Amino acid sequence: MIEDDGPAQVWRGGMVIHARPSGIVAPSRTGDDAMSKHFVHVAVVALGLFVTSAGAETLKLPDNLTGFSSDAGENYFVESDAREAYFPLASNFLTQKTQSYCGVASIVMVLNALNVPAPSVPEFEPYRTFTQDNILDERTDVILARDVLAKKGMTLDQIGGILATQPVKAEVRHAADSSVEEFRKLASSYLGQPNHFVIVNYLRKAIGQEKGGHISPLAAYDGKADRFLILDVARYKYPPVWVKASELFDAMNTQDSDNENKTRGFVLVSAASVQ
Amino acid sequence: MIEDDGPAQVWRGGMVIHARPSGIVAPSRTGDDAMSKHFVHVAVVALGLFVTSAGAETLKLPDNLTGFSSDAGENYFVESDAREAYFPLASNFLTQKTQSYCGVASIVMVLNALNVPAPSVPEFEPYRTFTQDNILDERTDVILARDVLAKKGMTLDQIGGILATQPVKAEVRHAADSSVEEFRKLASSYLGQPNHFVIVNYLRKAIGQEKGGHISPLAAYDGKADRFLILDVARYKYPPVWVKASELFDAMNTQDSDNENKTRGFVLVSAASVQ
Repeated sequence: MIEDDGPAQVWRGGMVIHARPSGIVAPSRTGDDAMSKHFVHVAVVALGLFVTSAGAETLKLPDNLTGFSSDAGENYFVESDAREAYFPLASNFLTQKTQSYCGVASIVMVLNALNVPAPSVPEFEPYRTFTQDNILDERTDVILARDVLAKKGMTLDQIGGILATQPVKAEVRHAADSSVEEFRKLASSYLGQPNHFVIVNYLRKAIGQEKGGHISPLAAYDGKADRFLILDVARYKYPPVWVKASELFDAMNTQDSDNENKTRGFVLVSAASVQ
Repeated sequence: MIEDDGPAQVWRGGMVIHARPSGIVAPSRTGDDAMSKHFVHVAVVALGLFVTSAGAETLKLPDNLTGFSSDAGENYFVESDAREAYFPLASNFLTQKTQSYCGVASIVMVLNALNVPAPSVPEFEPYRTFTQDNILDERTDVILARDVLAKKGMTLDQIGGILATQPVKAEVRHAADSSVEEFRKLASSYLGQPNHFVIVNYLRKAIGQEKGGHISPLAAYDGKADRFLILDVARYKYPPVWVKASELFDAMNTQDSDNENKTRGFVLVSAASVQ
């Protein structure tokens, strides 16, 4: 699923300016009494605008979606029934590396949240973690070659295939073979258990977003509102949102021309059991 | 503040293995009735271990710190008094790009959380966001040259200086010029207001971590436990933690040899006001 949307039709263009403030006040490197006793106002740079709205740099959300940072979004979180998945995912929340890497970013978040033994990273030696680079290797190339990934993104079945190269259990479910009732039950059950995660593959425009197929992890379920929290990995474009279970299911129940016109759907991921 | 700690002394080495499962089962690309009606168990790869503990890949936390994903950590969050800062920061949580980039990652998180007009990013066109690359330019080089940053990291005063190149208000506070009471009051007040953030610069070993100077944003305050939540940007090394206000203040009230032996401290950041 590639974020291949081109310029957005809904765009808060007024806020997007190349602001280059003048009159920058560098902080003093030497202490003096005035600095010691009072706040140092390092800089107050006026631009003639006041940043007040959340998401000024991201696209406007349609009315059916609730942003995570809004008052309603915070309330959904506090009242949510199933949010075990949230905490380890939030600790590993990523921005997809390119506009075709939504699937890669989602997989990396889940593997790090599951504490799967990770490869080394030169920059972080001696520490290890999955990244959107080191998750891809000769084994994943068999499932999805990196040049194809760069052009077309990832399908639902390829999410399952790439997860299968790691010591986790992954169950791929196409929406056409499920129902909103089953999805709600399975996904909310997973989100309420430690070491259980759900990745969803859906058509953005079906939930009122711009616009193509997309992949991100779910993090919580609020039964009272019947909404799931999507930690959208295209963080430059949309904030995390709460979406109605039925709307999300309908957006998964759409055909993917990159996957033999099979429907999109969801992947249930958990730690591999001992054998 | 550079994460220059070298190999960790406390290391769950037993979990860190190069797991290379065999017997990978690739997902079928063609549907059949069996696949349609039942879960496809894409792969159950047994490694003779069961990933159960949170943070198997990160360092063990000392008893005085509470991990965000632990039951106690989740409870602190739900009962917290001041968490307005949390939601936009969590939506922009980053891993520092290299072991000297903790200050850069912290600044980028806060600027994105504040929705400051951001530069373009070639990979995300037409969308814009701050990254650990595009925040650095000829103006920040005057404050901290990139080659020095790569070797030595960032000081408290340099956080203020780099924030001053953007349209935000930033107040730098050295611990020696403050007190735990004032820090608790100011920081909890900021964390409870929209568009207000706090970046802390502290000595890790003073709170029982490995081991040098470090920088990360605060995200919440729980008055009952008198603990702040640090969203630690060295995510390959430590999870977010809840730390006692007094212990965090003591860890900020330490001298930084890279900053003329001034003490570390905190930076209060908010949106620039209209003029």
